[in-house]
Amino acid sequence: MLYFISMKLIEPRNLKGFRDYLPEEQIARSKMIETIKKVFELFGFEPLETPVLEYEDILAGKYGEEGEKLMYRFKDQGQRDVAMRYDLTVPLARVVAQYQNELPRPFKRYQIAPVWRAENTQKGRYREFYQCDVDVVGPNVGLADAECIAMVSKILRQLGIKKFKVKVNNRKILNAIMATAGLSPEKVLVGIRTIDKIEKIGAKAVAEELENVLGMKKNEAESLIRLASTKVPDVGALKTFINKYILRDAQGQQGFSELNKVFMALEEFGVKDTEIDLSLARGLDYYTSTIFETVITENTESRRFGSVASGGRYDKLVNLFIGKDLPAVGISIGIDRLFAAMQELGLVKKGNVVDVLVLNLEPALEQEYIGLVRDLREAGINSEAYYENADLKKQFAFAEKKNIPFAVLFGTEEKSKNEVTVRDLKTRKQQTFKIKNFVKELEKLLKE
Amino acid sequence: MLYFISMKLIEPRNLKGFRDYLPEEQIARSKMIETIKKVFELFGFEPLETPVLEYEDILAGKYGEEGEKLMYRFKDQGQRDVAMRYDLTVPLARVVAQYQNELPRPFKRYQIAPVWRAENTQKGRYREFYQCDVDVVGPNVGLADAECIAMVSKILRQLGIKKFKVKVNNRKILNAIMATAGLSPEKVLVGIRTIDKIEKIGAKAVAEELENVLGMKKNEAESLIRLASTKVPDVGALKTFINKYILRDAQGQQGFSELNKVFMALEEFGVKDTEIDLSLARGLDYYTSTIFETVITENTESRRFGSVASGGRYDKLVNLFIGKDLPAVGISIGIDRLFAAMQELGLVKKGNVVDVLVLNLEPALEQEYIGLVRDLREAGINSEAYYENADLKKQFAFAEKKNIPFAVLFGTEEKSKNEVTVRDLKTRKQQTFKIKNFVKELEKLLKE
Repeated sequence: MLYFISMKLIEPRNLKGFRDYLPEEQIARSKMIETIKKVFELFGFEPLETPVLEYEDILAGKYGEEGEKLMYRFKDQGQRDVAMRYDLTVPLARVVAQYQNELPRPFKRYQIAPVWRAENTQKGRYREFYQCDVDVVGPNVGLADAECIAMVSKILRQLGIKKFKVKVNNRKILNAIMATAGLSPEKVLVGIRTIDKIEKIGAKAVAEELENVLGMKKNEAESLIRLASTKVPDVGALKTFINKYILRDAQGQQGFSELNKVFMALEEFGVKDTEIDLSLARGLDYYTSTIFETVITENTESRRFGSVASGGRYDKLVNLFIGKDLPAVGISIGIDRLFAAMQELGLVKKGNVVDVLVLNLEPALEQEYIGLVRDLREAGINSEAYYENADLKKQFAFAEKKNIPFAVLFGTEEKSKNEVTVRDLKTRKQQTFKIKNFVKELEKLLKE
Repeated sequence: MLYFISMKLIEPRNLKGFRDYLPEEQIARSKMIETIKKVFELFGFEPLETPVLEYEDILAGKYGEEGEKLMYRFKDQGQRDVAMRYDLTVPLARVVAQYQNELPRPFKRYQIAPVWRAENTQKGRYREFYQCDVDVVGPNVGLADAECIAMVSKILRQLGIKKFKVKVNNRKILNAIMATAGLSPEKVLVGIRTIDKIEKIGAKAVAEELENVLGMKKNEAESLIRLASTKVPDVGALKTFINKYILRDAQGQQGFSELNKVFMALEEFGVKDTEIDLSLARGLDYYTSTIFETVITENTESRRFGSVASGGRYDKLVNLFIGKDLPAVGISIGIDRLFAAMQELGLVKKGNVVDVLVLNLEPALEQEYIGLVRDLREAGINSEAYYENADLKKQFAFAEKKNIPFAVLFGTEEKSKNEVTVRDLKTRKQQTFKIKNFVKELEKLLKE
């Protein structure tokens, strides 16, 4: 309902960090999202939707100090404390807890939806952005982890990205390495977070931090960095390389066995775009086993676009709602980042929704233009008739804006001959067809 | 980022008026939305996306007193007054004003997205619900209005609804009728709103209101109601019927001429599910010309489901942002209401994402199950391998929950013969195929 109380002009504008997706961009984005969805469904994942607003206590306290600051929250009309969705993982945990008896087990779901964080926009961050998550809640097996990796690999290939690496590590191996390097259990997480910075701040700076903050000896720190800098294509290579470190430690053995299962499944899937990167830590403390990140290496240094898909195995999340652990593994595709990378790599082609524009050449023929567009639509061809008898330049400009490939011209002369002229708007070539054939001819032209 | 500060159990629950769409429902909803989108695109409309949060002044004062109360609004971290999207029409007006030089003209867009209103949930209303809008901003011609009607007609037919009426009226005709009945210009809108209640409260109650509130004489009121109760299939019938009322009045003549253009286009489109209903008023004061509402008449009285698609022509909206009128026409499909109607009419079939489940019969064969599912996926068949060697009952229950039609059985015996057994989970019929053929055989079975 729209009443116009104030007639003062309002400046049309967006909030900082919020974007409109105008059709040109939205058509390309939708296409990318469709590709992603199809791969998720190919792997047996089903769609879930959850509300934008949740009770504040569902979300609060789950995203650390920063998250508490960045979360949009307010009191609603009923004085309830509510908050806007901050990610898709906590709502998933709530859903799994809330509908325990209704959901299939294991629960394999995907959700592609915006989330809100009051980020500092000067860092190029958005306050409304899409997350695209796929998770398996239930089984504690390497196959689920491998499927996450296989999906990312398939998605990137289908989007036209040929060179990329899904980096894989296992938290238990990382813990074993830290223990072997002499770090006490309470220092392991700090050690992991420090090691995680190798690619960002360099090995030297990390070595200094290990010495100064964690009190490691120089040679210990250097040997830890050497070990953590290990990058091998698969588990076989890993075994010969760090046999003496990982397999001495019980946790290390378990982590290695888990990683082995993931890679056995990956081999069967035929996925080869992986790299075991022992420095990969993923700063968060809730991962318990497999972790992954994905970097595009196409004509570029690997950190240029950041990680476009990351995740791992976690098991405490549902615990917050039901009081017991439930193993889960998931991966989140950064679709905004991925789309930006595709744009930079020239992989986003200007799309179009409309295939044919019936031009409005003569007012007296307007009724017949409707008939032409009706015939096109009945054949399933996305098409429109220009609404008014405007200047032809205007009509062609309209076609160009919407990237419409073909125009149909029908004037008195065509009418007298029962013909229709079809113009290819790229090549400017024109062909004339009998009216009764023009839909079929256009179908052929569109297939080419 | 997830840190677990509090370990107190949180009750998993939704806010009142907010819903989760679990996969079973979401699969069916997505299918309906896909159908709608395809028709919009068939008619040349392109997708637009706008943010959930807007500056409060963009939305405030546009939805009347009730809207002001129901709008979710708060101060963000930067102390800005912000509000959650209340409909899709005001954001459209903002976009048209903000990107005047970038958008094609006319601008034909669709947007399917949730909006938020703190409604009274006891009336069965939701606080988060989807709107599905399609609008043309630019030309002031009947063809655009007719396309709105033609789209709704095509969408309902494609969704399996066979009996429905798109009710059409024109505000100018309504104004003429009111003037002819002797209402002064300032009373016309009150008269229109009163007439709009005929189907809700009955002709008698409306007659009393016309007498008591508007001071009409009894015979005048009755004659107005008779006129406004006119329902005819098209403009031809209208002309003979109320010639003497409408065409005496200049506004009435214009309205009739507009309606005539809409129906000429509808005839060419072959749309016959229309009804001119002179009592149709659409309570809002911003409509200027054509108005429509859609009722499902299938085996039911027409008001059972309410209007599933309504809208009309308006021209003041963009004015709020740019200071000049821009003609526009649009229709909004109530997809929640439509989905509920389809459910009641038995038109929503239980859908499925996954077509084949590879059962986990023997732990020793797990690696081969991965190979089987890989082959299925390579052929584009949505499929999954059950992750663990669980009890078969559990695996079949999983298949049932996900409504998976086929299972693949592969045990030691099958392996020794290079065979695969395929089980139709509905009919429980089993067939055995050679491994090298099983993907093709499943493709055939899925096509049946």
